[in-house]
Amino acid sequence: MTRVALALVHHPCVDRDGNIFTTSITNLDVHDIARAATTYGCDAFYVVTPVSAQQQMARRIIGFWEEGPGHKRNPDRTVAMRTVHVAASVEEAVGSEQQALGARPLLVATSARPQGTASVASLRARLGSESGVLVLFGTGHGLAPALIDGADVVLAPLAGRPDKNGGYNHLSVRSAVAIHLDRLLAADG
Amino acid sequence: MTRVALALVHHPCVDRDGNIFTTSITNLDVHDIARAATTYGCDAFYVVTPVSAQQQMARRIIGFWEEGPGHKRNPDRTVAMRTVHVAASVEEAVGSEQQALGARPLLVATSARPQGTASVASLRARLGSESGVLVLFGTGHGLAPALIDGADVVLAPLAGRPDKNGGYNHLSVRSAVAIHLDRLLAADG
Repeated sequence: MTRVALALVHHPCVDRDGNIFTTSITNLDVHDIARAATTYGCDAFYVVTPVSAQQQMARRIIGFWEEGPGHKRNPDRTVAMRTVHVAASVEEAVGSEQQALGARPLLVATSARPQGTASVASLRARLGSESGVLVLFGTGHGLAPALIDGADVVLAPLAGRPDKNGGYNHLSVRSAVAIHLDRLLAADG
Repeated sequence: MTRVALALVHHPCVDRDGNIFTTSITNLDVHDIARAATTYGCDAFYVVTPVSAQQQMARRIIGFWEEGPGHKRNPDRTVAMRTVHVAASVEEAVGSEQQALGARPLLVATSARPQGTASVASLRARLGSESGVLVLFGTGHGLAPALIDGADVVLAPLAGRPDKNGGYNHLSVRSAVAIHLDRLLAADG
């Protein structure tokens, strides 16, 4: 079965003016995406940040639920946190997947702007012939151009309802990840 | 075009032991669901709570983005917040929709437990012949039995990937709303 991994990228991202910057980790991103990744049977979820204090914070969040008081309070969260790994860069996440697969994963970039044209359905159709895929999600105002340019596949933005939304297309990354996972992996979709 | 409304229900909900209780409003629920509802062209999003202090807090969150400093900082959020309404009960939300429609909306309940069998696809197929639908999402451990029993349609739980998730099925309500909207309304889905 194809190995599916996600990465939530905090660097390099773009800010509202298009400059490269580093975002901070949001606690609820880690929780929501870990829960969605586990529900949809993903093999790994990488939280990517080069900032060591942020890496430590992410590890504290994970540890709280894996062995700390959180485990006693909510064992379901423990299961979800098992998929979460901290990586210093996208390249490090790719390397971990390469080690697990014995081959480089298909690298997929997502964007809320019209930077790609591949549909999630076309990626789903391709899953059977790939050994593994790693899907990148940006924070802030999205993945930096270098990550878009370096990807094997760039997915088209989720369109919502252009006939009713007046061009509004601003999902949170938590919502965008959930929808992508559902389209890519749902057994009942 | 069919009017589509959502309600995020904080009472009556069930807690982990199945008792009826009232949950607190989570700031990020309001934001994430308002953004998803607007992207998918929903007509209204009701935040339902009988607690007047919680209603005031919800109105403060909305007001900050509609006219306060938030509008200057992030005008996109202002657009999303226009869909949000505070209601004291599900019946009040139904009444507001009835007033907008001139008829009672089709009342749809969702659950992460196997309480319903209708697929979102079957609801989507039915949208054209309904004047309006109101979809209820529970917080805590889900909608109270009275709301499930009183609904016209109860949707089946989102299954994720039962072949890979070992029975784990614990999406956040933010993720569940996003996936339901995508299945129900996406123009490109």
